[in-house]
Amino acid sequence: MKDIEILINGVLNSDKRVIAKTLTKVENETSDSEELLEELYKHTGKAHRIGITGPPGAGKSTLTNNLIKLLSSLGKKVGVIAVDPTSPFTGGALLGDRIRMQESGLLENVFIRSMATRGSLGGLCKNVVEASDVLDAAGMDFIIIETVGVGQSELDIAQTADTVIVVLVPESGDAVQAMKAGLMEIADIFVLNKSEREGADAVAATIKNIIHLKPATEDGWIINVLKTVGSKNEGTEELFKEIEKHRNHLLDSGFIRKRRMLHLEKKVIDLVNNKLKVNFWDKEKTQLLTNRLESMIDRDENPYSFVKSLLS
Amino acid sequence: MKDIEILINGVLNSDKRVIAKTLTKVENETSDSEELLEELYKHTGKAHRIGITGPPGAGKSTLTNNLIKLLSSLGKKVGVIAVDPTSPFTGGALLGDRIRMQESGLLENVFIRSMATRGSLGGLCKNVVEASDVLDAAGMDFIIIETVGVGQSELDIAQTADTVIVVLVPESGDAVQAMKAGLMEIADIFVLNKSEREGADAVAATIKNIIHLKPATEDGWIINVLKTVGSKNEGTEELFKEIEKHRNHLLDSGFIRKRRMLHLEKKVIDLVNNKLKVNFWDKEKTQLLTNRLESMIDRDENPYSFVKSLLS
Repeated sequence: MKDIEILINGVLNSDKRVIAKTLTKVENETSDSEELLEELYKHTGKAHRIGITGPPGAGKSTLTNNLIKLLSSLGKKVGVIAVDPTSPFTGGALLGDRIRMQESGLLENVFIRSMATRGSLGGLCKNVVEASDVLDAAGMDFIIIETVGVGQSELDIAQTADTVIVVLVPESGDAVQAMKAGLMEIADIFVLNKSEREGADAVAATIKNIIHLKPATEDGWIINVLKTVGSKNEGTEELFKEIEKHRNHLLDSGFIRKRRMLHLEKKVIDLVNNKLKVNFWDKEKTQLLTNRLESMIDRDENPYSFVKSLLS
Repeated sequence: MKDIEILINGVLNSDKRVIAKTLTKVENETSDSEELLEELYKHTGKAHRIGITGPPGAGKSTLTNNLIKLLSSLGKKVGVIAVDPTSPFTGGALLGDRIRMQESGLLENVFIRSMATRGSLGGLCKNVVEASDVLDAAGMDFIIIETVGVGQSELDIAQTADTVIVVLVPESGDAVQAMKAGLMEIADIFVLNKSEREGADAVAATIKNIIHLKPATEDGWIINVLKTVGSKNEGTEELFKEIEKHRNHLLDSGFIRKRRMLHLEKKVIDLVNNKLKVNFWDKEKTQLLTNRLESMIDRDENPYSFVKSLLS
């Protein structure tokens, strides 16, 4: 059997070691990773993908961990992708709160993977969708994608997940500020975590008011605000019920297909645009740009005409 | 005189009305906008560009407004670009704190422009650099680019500004959380705003400690943490002194050229990549993608081979 067939069979059989190896190839974009993804694609589409996002410190990892344990106890197969912003000068020392989650990775039927964002400024790393496809092909019932909610990453998670959970805390500041950060627009479910803290009811009420201002979504889903206390594992079952409710809503209304077609369209466009860039910026063109920067910075030529000449 | 010459002369003469008109063209990417930018480019490079970023609610607009007034009183010409995340369902109702800033726009030698991020999820809109070029050509001494700090926007601002100011507040949560959001890595100056509040000294000390962990920057600049109370206009002069100190450091060390060459390189790459996309995705290819989504979602074909056929 060819190497690639061994990997594919391993993934399809949920072999944790092989899944890990395949994810590493996908993350590093090795020469055979595209062939792997191409082969695995036809086995995808069964898992329900849950995105969990929110501002730093909202307790997303703790909630994720609670969900993992619950899903596992219900006999569900769970894949988790935890997106970590890497910091070039701390070298990953910030990942402490992920360590507790790794323990859950020892549970049977649970597979957890940390992926680092390359740019260190948050955002979903570009291969998260592909990594989800691997976990999907591996037969996971649920895939949880957890990412720190800073800008681009919310947009990305909304374009990947079937159900998007936005986690806030009473200290997240007034809800208007949260809206500024764009979180309100992508949520299928709001979670107010650390809800035993002062001001929780007021913040929950404000979020509910803002939701009412929002025009009804096309698919008729009504966004709910749930209260949890992640550290005490309170509200996890209610959260899972709400996820199931949203999932059934998507399935019953048929909007799951529409949503996934949008995700797929985005995926194809991203694949193409990335290849256009990679194909264009060969060694010669990159060198040419480097050589001309001096004359452009000195205003002897201008970037617009340089770009024109480069493209013609 | 041709229309475009009238615009260019107007910008070069700091005619506020013409600057506004030109910026609208640049923002909307009208057919003549590139020619305008091409002509204006040789008149750029004189302004010092200040980026102000930080989490929602940190008081960036108030600080910006204080800086505008101070710079104006010193006889400096100031251009401001305030990047607003637009919300599709509030329609811009969040911009209240920018209204106060608009009053400063009535000052002579001050030009203020709000630009909306298209995606509504923060981030610098793609024409901010070009808009800064227009203000630069218009003879501004300082250009302030203010953006809500959510993810991608910090990276963008760091790739545009000569001096990056990161604004935090005592409530920004522990500094480790702020680091997670990547803010620590792009700051030339930290401002702890609302520093009359409880816990300010502790947060300032934590930020200083974290800065010490960071390897010295290549150019030898030492990042400082300043305390301000924006609402009382406290600390504004100290902040301007620190900006001037950083500016002189860049000029004396010659690192301003290096920094701006990196910005220019990024700008050219972005211009090219954007044109590659626009040129590729013509009506025919877009339609082809739409037509094939059904069969891809049904797993009858896979996106990877479709992308290959599309590119060949």
